Amino acid sequence: MSATSAPVAAVARLVAAVLPADESAGAAARARHERLIKPPGSLGRLEEVGIALAAATGVCPPATPERPALVLAAGDHGVLAQGVSAWPAEVTALMVGELCAGRAAASALARVVGAQVTVLDVGVAADLPRHPRLKDSKIRRGTRDLALEPAMTLDEAARALLAGAGVAEQLIGAGVDLLVIGDMGIGNTTPAACLIAALTGRAAQDVTGPGAGIDADGLARKTGVVEAALTLHRDTLADPPAGLAALAALGGLEHAALAGVILAAAGSDVPVVLDGVSTVAAALVATRMAPAAGGRLFAGHRSTEPGASVGLEALGLAPLLELGMRLGEGTGGLLAVPLVRAAAAALAGMATFEEAGITA
Amino acid sequence: MSATSAPVAAVARLVAAVLPADESAGAAARARHERLIKPPGSLGRLEEVGIALAAATGVCPPATPERPALVLAAGDHGVLAQGVSAWPAEVTALMVGELCAGRAAASALARVVGAQVTVLDVGVAADLPRHPRLKDSKIRRGTRDLALEPAMTLDEAARALLAGAGVAEQLIGAGVDLLVIGDMGIGNTTPAACLIAALTGRAAQDVTGPGAGIDADGLARKTGVVEAALTLHRDTLADPPAGLAALAALGGLEHAALAGVILAAAGSDVPVVLDGVSTVAAALVATRMAPAAGGRLFAGHRSTEPGASVGLEALGLAPLLELGMRLGEGTGGLLAVPLVRAAAAALAGMATFEEAGITA
Repeated sequence: MSATSAPVAAVARLVAAVLPADESAGAAARARHERLIKPPGSLGRLEEVGIALAAATGVCPPATPERPALVLAAGDHGVLAQGVSAWPAEVTALMVGELCAGRAAASALARVVGAQVTVLDVGVAADLPRHPRLKDSKIRRGTRDLALEPAMTLDEAARALLAGAGVAEQLIGAGVDLLVIGDMGIGNTTPAACLIAALTGRAAQDVTGPGAGIDADGLARKTGVVEAALTLHRDTLADPPAGLAALAALGGLEHAALAGVILAAAGSDVPVVLDGVSTVAAALVATRMAPAAGGRLFAGHRSTEPGASVGLEALGLAPLLELGMRLGEGTGGLLAVPLVRAAAAALAGMATFEEAGITA
Repeated sequence: MSATSAPVAAVARLVAAVLPADESAGAAARARHERLIKPPGSLGRLEEVGIALAAATGVCPPATPERPALVLAAGDHGVLAQGVSAWPAEVTALMVGELCAGRAAASALARVVGAQVTVLDVGVAADLPRHPRLKDSKIRRGTRDLALEPAMTLDEAARALLAGAGVAEQLIGAGVDLLVIGDMGIGNTTPAACLIAALTGRAAQDVTGPGAGIDADGLARKTGVVEAALTLHRDTLADPPAGLAALAALGGLEHAALAGVILAAAGSDVPVVLDGVSTVAAALVATRMAPAAGGRLFAGHRSTEPGASVGLEALGLAPLLELGMRLGEGTGGLLAVPLVRAAAAALAGMATFEEAGITA
């Protein structure tokens, strides 16, 4: 597979379209917060979120996101054959069905925050019935086993990434102004751990956790799989690894798609809220390819999965919520949507001291 | 003032109406969470909130709160004469005006979470123009200086408490299903610190902070005022102090009103979300009077004010958010409303493993 294949070239164009965040809008928001009717700094991290949102969108005060959308990418994983999960692959397709039907955790939370849900099949190892919420962009029925060979070709990784970008562009074109990303894929915390380790230089044991719940023996086996995979693929990856190459060697199709969502959103100055460890892995890929994309990222929730914290630290992001969640599906990101909206609303909806005639 | 005055007797009836939370509904919610389509425990603290909400309301799955309301009690403080704040008392009335006009921080955040706002004047030291959002129940124009004498008579404290209870009952009668409490009152972190110290037995320096922003000299002076007030009133208070007596000696009219909101809500099985240090002080008063009221309380946000953490610990509550905020007005409580709603929605809106045909 040549690096100049059409999908790989299209990814390069996506990357090139990501421009730096607008620091002048951020500075204007910072200055505005000093003039609003409250003790300076008293809204704490909400002020920082508002400033980052102004920079991400290039507008001060930033518009309050009114049309959030969850893009939930789904795929299966060849590495499941190594015994890295307590759940069988069939659960991925079943959960996609529940997500489409509106009966999963993410469905319930999306309703609360008013987010529309799109499920993007880039790699589920089953034929899925058509559904209005389901976008079929299946690249292949699950990845290859990353413990034995590259999980994807560069071309497959690029096509999955473009599928995610395409969904993001379609939603943004229809008026969506805030994207939350989520994942569904039994076994996908193993490739997430591999990506985070490869892209941060951290060891397997620092980034590997129990995922959806595996026992101590299983966790030891999973950590060994991650460690061996990093060794197996080290020679084929540059040092530091390129984003797309790392995806192809060690990732999942849903991680590729979510990286595409981030790149497309960043290219359109639309903010993206991260969720758990798979979305953090996708964000590390996206920012490796286009560092400026980081200026559109917000960390919704700190997953208990250790790789999430390692990745967030590398991204320079502090999560808005720490509720001990480890579900994925975008659940932690969805819960942060009202906080992002509140950060914007405070900047736009409060009077200044001058307007209120208040002096200390 | 006799303990059998009409207001004090009415407070006793309010207290007697608070029954324990429904532990069987809580247990049913806990059992239901084990059957929902997610790894057990993977929604983290959101599961605990859902269980507590079922117990608080006596229904499993709990209804998702659709009509939240903020009750924001306002008052002024005689202790301001001791130099405990960087802001003049006039700002209380000005900020009440901004809250009524919908231009304060709480206004912006209330709009984001869909909460209606009622401002309850129990003690602002100014004549306030009428406004649809403003409920006039002024007991007196500010408290007396607690550094010199009791801040209120028992009767005044009881009347302020009953004013808060009355607003809560009116809102609940109109269909409000979740109450957030907030405060506005220049100087009110000093009586809040006094109440928290008196009701937890902690020292002045453990509970006194910079409030809306006072310099180091001011903080030392403020801590000294709290310490001296605790000594001054110790002999007139029982050990441990009764809630209403502590309010009268050391509190603010808005703290009394907010304690009344809590007691009335608890008596109607309506959950209450706390905000910063003044609401925590009110919660300590309410639970001292009716310990079972604690079963309807949710901590929205951990204020940076040290007394808030001391009080929350005594209440056995862990806040849902830690965003470094210290504004009051109910802002931190408002931000937690979507989390409470999400906790309910997850219990009510997800399929069970059996329904989805999923087995591990």
